[in-house]
Amino acid sequence: MGDTFVVVGGDAAGMSAASKAKREDPDLDVVVFEKGEYVSYAACGMPYYVKGEIESIDDLVQITPEQFREERNIDLRTHHEVVDVDADAMEVTVEPGPDAAAEETFTQAYDDLLIATGASAIEPPFPGIELDGVFTIHALDEADAINDYLAQTGAETAAIVGGGYVGIEMAEALDGRGLDVALFEMLPHVLQPFGESVATAMEDHLVDQGVDLHLDTAVEGFSGHYEGGVKAVDLEDGEQVPADVVIVGVGVAPNSDLADDAGIEVGETGAVATDDYGRTSVEHVWSAGDCAEATHVVTGDPDHVPLALTANRAGRAIGESVATGELQETGGMAGTAIVKGFDLGASRTGIVDEERAAEAGFDPVAVEIQTASRADYYPGATELTVKLVADGESGRVLGGSLVGREGVKRIDTIASALHAGMTVDELERLDLAYAPPFSPTWDPVLTAAKVLGGKLE
Amino acid sequence: MGDTFVVVGGDAAGMSAASKAKREDPDLDVVVFEKGEYVSYAACGMPYYVKGEIESIDDLVQITPEQFREERNIDLRTHHEVVDVDADAMEVTVEPGPDAAAEETFTQAYDDLLIATGASAIEPPFPGIELDGVFTIHALDEADAINDYLAQTGAETAAIVGGGYVGIEMAEALDGRGLDVALFEMLPHVLQPFGESVATAMEDHLVDQGVDLHLDTAVEGFSGHYEGGVKAVDLEDGEQVPADVVIVGVGVAPNSDLADDAGIEVGETGAVATDDYGRTSVEHVWSAGDCAEATHVVTGDPDHVPLALTANRAGRAIGESVATGELQETGGMAGTAIVKGFDLGASRTGIVDEERAAEAGFDPVAVEIQTASRADYYPGATELTVKLVADGESGRVLGGSLVGREGVKRIDTIASALHAGMTVDELERLDLAYAPPFSPTWDPVLTAAKVLGGKLE
Repeated sequence: MGDTFVVVGGDAAGMSAASKAKREDPDLDVVVFEKGEYVSYAACGMPYYVKGEIESIDDLVQITPEQFREERNIDLRTHHEVVDVDADAMEVTVEPGPDAAAEETFTQAYDDLLIATGASAIEPPFPGIELDGVFTIHALDEADAINDYLAQTGAETAAIVGGGYVGIEMAEALDGRGLDVALFEMLPHVLQPFGESVATAMEDHLVDQGVDLHLDTAVEGFSGHYEGGVKAVDLEDGEQVPADVVIVGVGVAPNSDLADDAGIEVGETGAVATDDYGRTSVEHVWSAGDCAEATHVVTGDPDHVPLALTANRAGRAIGESVATGELQETGGMAGTAIVKGFDLGASRTGIVDEERAAEAGFDPVAVEIQTASRADYYPGATELTVKLVADGESGRVLGGSLVGREGVKRIDTIASALHAGMTVDELERLDLAYAPPFSPTWDPVLTAAKVLGGKLE
Repeated sequence: MGDTFVVVGGDAAGMSAASKAKREDPDLDVVVFEKGEYVSYAACGMPYYVKGEIESIDDLVQITPEQFREERNIDLRTHHEVVDVDADAMEVTVEPGPDAAAEETFTQAYDDLLIATGASAIEPPFPGIELDGVFTIHALDEADAINDYLAQTGAETAAIVGGGYVGIEMAEALDGRGLDVALFEMLPHVLQPFGESVATAMEDHLVDQGVDLHLDTAVEGFSGHYEGGVKAVDLEDGEQVPADVVIVGVGVAPNSDLADDAGIEVGETGAVATDDYGRTSVEHVWSAGDCAEATHVVTGDPDHVPLALTANRAGRAIGESVATGELQETGGMAGTAIVKGFDLGASRTGIVDEERAAEAGFDPVAVEIQTASRADYYPGATELTVKLVADGESGRVLGGSLVGREGVKRIDTIASALHAGMTVDELERLDLAYAPPFSPTWDPVLTAAKVLGGKLE
């Protein structure tokens, strides 16, 4: 009999690991326990389903449970929650949910275990958060619940709590559905990890699009109708802002309790600590995805930035390591992110904020430039703002951001420079593609590097 | 009195060098001789002017001669041709044209000389090439001449000779003006430097757009009306294809005669040989732009790929070196290029062709993948084809290409990998930006690297 690889959690990291392991070693028994109903779904597509741009929620399911079971030969058990890990006995305790075929709690032995329990949306202890019509965005299930609620109540006003990317995408989605949208952000700016230049551009754009934007505004709770549905957002200063539906998107926290309870080391970020190969502090236990830390390519330190690509990649590397016995690096991450809000795109990578760069021990020097997204004479050219941050001493690129109506995917060039450890000078010398419909002669990233290079001299 | 920096040629390389030198050292006398009327114009924008998407040709002039003279304090002399370089005497002989203020041939001494004479469109010795209505694309002047001819003759059919990027852009332009367009390419494919996968996609697209495409077809010459205007393209097999206007775009050749006559070394490519700083074989003589070689970052060999960014960058570096006395590297080039033909984009960098890679001493392994330009469920996602070539022995990335309706600017990620000397494995681990409106979770470049990595193992 082959070895058994047990995976806890059937999302990006878990299913990537399971699939890769089975492909590399078909004799390996691969068992995946997933608490919920969906596996391998594109949660990132949810706002566009709510907006109505994606017809069926099935389009967001990348691979069905049946395909995993039948085509990939993975023993996938949905509606099964792993409630305990016994690392000494090398087994997990599993509780089947009401919808599962099995009924009794059981144990499952493993030779290798992957903890890929993901992250959960933070539910702030707001009075009224339990009201009908208040949704905390996390799983795909929420999308249908939101759509049903909108259809049943004919909601006309929406409040979004939290100006992160989920909040902004949901503002676009609900505006697209014809609702009047208010957005509340506790901090002075939206999109905090993107830095101030991106934030202010996005804020202006949200206001232009008719979003009722409340920055620096703490939400106290929610008030309801006597029927139980939400009717308003209560602010600290006593003001009440009417809202027929509320979306709470104030961030996520890693689901690291299962690991913590089993004596597995959890890092300062609150996520499971791992080495370069995704191994935890306990032998034969691996961790990846939104519940785990990853190494930041700029600082070299463990960090927690829950993003789909990092999860996929780490899962895949671990699946290969488990199946082949040859350790694969999970790869560093640069915290590269991109978001669309209405007609504006924003992206970031590495360290965008001078203060954070100084905290990490660098001597930050930054520039921010405005340039055209295409040749300035070419139809459709729009303004693009690029921020670039470098270490004054070594000249090394630390991070950057872009914001504009098109062309923000060129953040990938800066991300590539971070991975390669390039200096500003090296970045400036990259031979990037130019033709009038695509770029100015000097790509905006090169122009930023050119200007920053001048400041570093 | 300060030193004198003489620049021959007032386009990208020349004007970048002149401007940078003057900025770095305002006491330096900077004299630029330009044979023609325009300086610092965006020749790349010409097809879009002919198409009618750009209203005025003045939009293509980035900086006017007056601005160079008055704002930048550069002694710019248009309509002045440098006909001889005497490197021993450190002087050039200059012939003013009929439009110049000066009238007599004179000499100008230099302390440093930059030869930035550019490249000229190749004029094949076709019988009939002198006919009215046959245009060989090179300078901005042609655009007005073409527009005038179209207006005067009411031309209805156009023939393009040459399927390079200029040919394809002019096919789009003339089709946009309502002409029936036929395109003739001598080789089996258009866009030869982009490789076969890009070429066939572009060919299908051209045909879809109604272009009458003739591959593998040698043009013999042109026939004219008795009034002197062109009326047809004559093919090798005797066929005559009617054409009221003809655009010849079969490539460019470096203008290296001036350097060659002065005893300056010209490389195998026919362009002026330079070192990493743009210095020629003769002291105090520099060269940059379309007349000069540059170092290819993949092969490390001198190569001639006349592109605007390389010219700008090298000019700027030389200007700084001359003004400060501190040598600046001109930077390598990867032959990165991008082109739009109707609704299709194509891009390439490095070595795209396995045969050429083998010739350069590599052991090429390549993959070609099809993937979506955005998350596959997101509106507007279209198919993107990525080709990636690596060296089988070292795993090093050698080059790649993309073709699709959007997203081909991500060639920059591969170009960055080439500059950094990344392996396929390193490329695969880049943390690139993902959100459904911009990319699949695995960016198409990463997917190509993942598949190529599997082949290399």
